[in-house]
Amino acid sequence: MVGTCDERCRLLKMPADHAIAEFGVSHLVLYDDQTFPGYCLLILREHATELFHLTPAFRTALLEDVCRAAEALQRVFRPTKVNYAVLGNQSPHLHWHLVPRRADDPAWPRPVWSHPHEKQVPPSARVRELVRAIRDALR
Amino acid sequence: MVGTCDERCRLLKMPADHAIAEFGVSHLVLYDDQTFPGYCLLILREHATELFHLTPAFRTALLEDVCRAAEALQRVFRPTKVNYAVLGNQSPHLHWHLVPRRADDPAWPRPVWSHPHEKQVPPSARVRELVRAIRDALR
Repeated sequence: MVGTCDERCRLLKMPADHAIAEFGVSHLVLYDDQTFPGYCLLILREHATELFHLTPAFRTALLEDVCRAAEALQRVFRPTKVNYAVLGNQSPHLHWHLVPRRADDPAWPRPVWSHPHEKQVPPSARVRELVRAIRDALR
Repeated sequence: MVGTCDERCRLLKMPADHAIAEFGVSHLVLYDDQTFPGYCLLILREHATELFHLTPAFRTALLEDVCRAAEALQRVFRPTKVNYAVLGNQSPHLHWHLVPRRADDPAWPRPVWSHPHEKQVPPSARVRELVRAIRDALR
């Protein structure tokens, strides 16, 4: 691993009820903004910032976590396409944006970041429903 | 592999002088729009659309190609952060956007897609220079 967590890593902290699953080297959480339903973050447990800083075995394990999560999102949301991104300009702690995209979503076919919008934080009952559906699909 | 190429795959075709390198399961090309210098596409040679459609061995090979390319971009452009994305809403043929990001670039720290702009296609001498620099860093 390279480096240690700092205050910017805390930007990735979602509310406790958004936690979905612990994977091999990462954990999966529902993103707070659900403008795009099923938008999740997959966050590396240890601190690192670039994929090429990880050992090949470690990044392979991370990619398997990513694929497991993406496949579950595919099952639940039946998206036209899953979008994956590792950005980290604001919080460099390695994390993946996993976004089920639909041809009727407000940004389609552009990337979600091309669509300025107010954050849509769902009520807790809806959060529970989404988290449960994704957990079920992971089994 | 899943599916075969169709006309949307051709959207990924960059001018011939943008070709940088052939890797294990993919090839690397300089993106035509160089608003963000060093922006490349890493394109899977075979047709597939989702990472989770690939076998674990195949996606591991793809990730190694990605890391080799990203590390070369790091050497050449000394970015603050490399951004990686697999979107594919317009051209679902599996490809990675690899973008060296700098704290003084026009979109920082937002994702590049949050910054509407005219395509900046560099003159061919500049393309040659960028391609050569990335090739040298891959050695």
